[in-house]
Amino acid sequence: MTPDETGGRRLRVAVDVAGADLGPEPVVAGALAAAATVDVVLVGPQALIRPLLPGGVPPPGVRLVHAPDVVTMAEDPVAATYAKRRSSLLVAAGQVATGRADAMVTPGNTGAAVLAAAVRLGRVPGVSNPALATVLPVPGAGPTVLLDIGATAAAVPEWLVEFAVLGTEYARVRLGLDRPRVGLLSNGHESVKGGPVRRDAHLLLATMPGYVGQIEAYDVLGGRVDVAVTDGFTGDVALKMHERTLDATVGLALDAVRAFSPIGALARDRERRVTQAVRNGLEAEPGGALLGVRGVCVICHGTAGAADIEASVGIAGECLRSGVVRRIGAAFAASSEQRRRGRRSPVDG
Amino acid sequence: MTPDETGGRRLRVAVDVAGADLGPEPVVAGALAAAATVDVVLVGPQALIRPLLPGGVPPPGVRLVHAPDVVTMAEDPVAATYAKRRSSLLVAAGQVATGRADAMVTPGNTGAAVLAAAVRLGRVPGVSNPALATVLPVPGAGPTVLLDIGATAAAVPEWLVEFAVLGTEYARVRLGLDRPRVGLLSNGHESVKGGPVRRDAHLLLATMPGYVGQIEAYDVLGGRVDVAVTDGFTGDVALKMHERTLDATVGLALDAVRAFSPIGALARDRERRVTQAVRNGLEAEPGGALLGVRGVCVICHGTAGAADIEASVGIAGECLRSGVVRRIGAAFAASSEQRRRGRRSPVDG
Repeated sequence: MTPDETGGRRLRVAVDVAGADLGPEPVVAGALAAAATVDVVLVGPQALIRPLLPGGVPPPGVRLVHAPDVVTMAEDPVAATYAKRRSSLLVAAGQVATGRADAMVTPGNTGAAVLAAAVRLGRVPGVSNPALATVLPVPGAGPTVLLDIGATAAAVPEWLVEFAVLGTEYARVRLGLDRPRVGLLSNGHESVKGGPVRRDAHLLLATMPGYVGQIEAYDVLGGRVDVAVTDGFTGDVALKMHERTLDATVGLALDAVRAFSPIGALARDRERRVTQAVRNGLEAEPGGALLGVRGVCVICHGTAGAADIEASVGIAGECLRSGVVRRIGAAFAASSEQRRRGRRSPVDG
Repeated sequence: MTPDETGGRRLRVAVDVAGADLGPEPVVAGALAAAATVDVVLVGPQALIRPLLPGGVPPPGVRLVHAPDVVTMAEDPVAATYAKRRSSLLVAAGQVATGRADAMVTPGNTGAAVLAAAVRLGRVPGVSNPALATVLPVPGAGPTVLLDIGATAAAVPEWLVEFAVLGTEYARVRLGLDRPRVGLLSNGHESVKGGPVRRDAHLLLATMPGYVGQIEAYDVLGGRVDVAVTDGFTGDVALKMHERTLDATVGLALDAVRAFSPIGALARDRERRVTQAVRNGLEAEPGGALLGVRGVCVICHGTAGAADIEASVGIAGECLRSGVVRRIGAAFAASSEQRRRGRRSPVDG
């Protein structure tokens, strides 16, 4: 959907209210806050949602769609998706598939969310597996798109090449770059590193415009690339390591400042501002965009707070306005056309 | 080697002077500093080392062993090891294998260092692949042993089980724990996570005393486990992400403190103390111990400074005094004995 396609009307975002780690309260609170700028569809068990609405009634700009089943975090995504056909995830994706909503946002079981979106929205032709992409700010440089952070745990070389194309399009619309620099996350810069999967992906990517080579984890926050490509297992580990180290470091830094500062403790209010400044400078966006499906789906942390949900609705809006799904479709169609004509392309595999 | 076996004599540590990213200067400087407490054998091209010695002569407690070949960081470990039989890595490992040194320390090409140690020292019977282990401090809790951080990039379930045994013995001697808690690094706590390799390893580890289950990257610095087990590719990414985020966060925190502090800038000397306090509280040890080979080998960063080299010699000394190689041998011998008697054991595979 392009800006023209939305015709200036308010966007409609389906928010999955069930299955988050912290229960439905922060999700509904964030969705109601987002309703100031977009129409919101709250999807989940009615009995769970109604008590959280003012007077038990959806306010203007908010619609309620009942979905009786909930997929929990511990459930196997495939088994749960087959067993729970009326889960909030499948119903929310169905809202997008049938045109009753423009995008979906969920803090639920990532694997089940990916499956619901893939099943109901379908994949972009040419995409084997969707990838989840986040944006990481980098101190002193432009932000980095990191993908996959958990949609597709395993990886074969061809999928990593597809992720590179998905990440490139996402960086174009989210970071405003014409030709993003793409790196393949590995355990060294040397082409002998990375094991057979990365080495093969490295060779396949050699013809891709913007590809700079294998990178190390240092480079994800190093200003050396705009897009860091990896499989969903490694991306999950890298992102969670980043988050935990960030938290722990801020905590220790503030302890140390308190201990060594000539005036003793920083005022509590200033500590909050220091922490916020660090978070603004380094913390990943709260929602990842699921790329490679034929619709906009933003998946956030199971522990997302109200502000994270509101921000994730904002990311969904940016994806819609920039037409990233259409651009991804065009990129894969172009490479399939190249293939038909017998030329090599970055998604050839 | 046990404290009794050393008989109170000074330990002899072979230090590979060639192949580091920063050249031989910091390596020689760190080795000379370490020579205050251990005997040091400097291994590398004579012409490279002599100019860095006071008066061109090894001081007391320092011996020089010529090795003409240097393996660079960009070289393929296997090809370089076959082509350069007189590399500083193979010569240093040979010093240990022939009893002329008790341990080796190298800041060189990790893959080639692992190969040199495995070829010259041999593997502990029952160990398929060696693993490189580091110790990470955890704020508010005991430190965590993280392995493998780069010796064996690929992993099959049985190797991860072996790493769990190696990490347990290392945690016993380095952290002084009787029964360390062991976690398998994955992309979630649920047993459905992790893909086939982790799921199988999780099942094999179920019988291991101390095994707590699959963990997320958050838990590596979370006080939930004493040993975090993963393959060398993932361990490399996790550790480098940790290091980079730590550096970036300290930088931003100090910037923010400066900006928001009522008295403006912290004095530069206090900033250094804050940075040092954070590093002490979160930074991994500069040297990883290569576990599973029949000797002590500590591999450090290619960018190791003099203090890192000196600290790595200290880690080698701790490994020698605690007899970790003998303990690992005993652990694998015991599980092989259990297997012979038809009982399942954690290294059964």
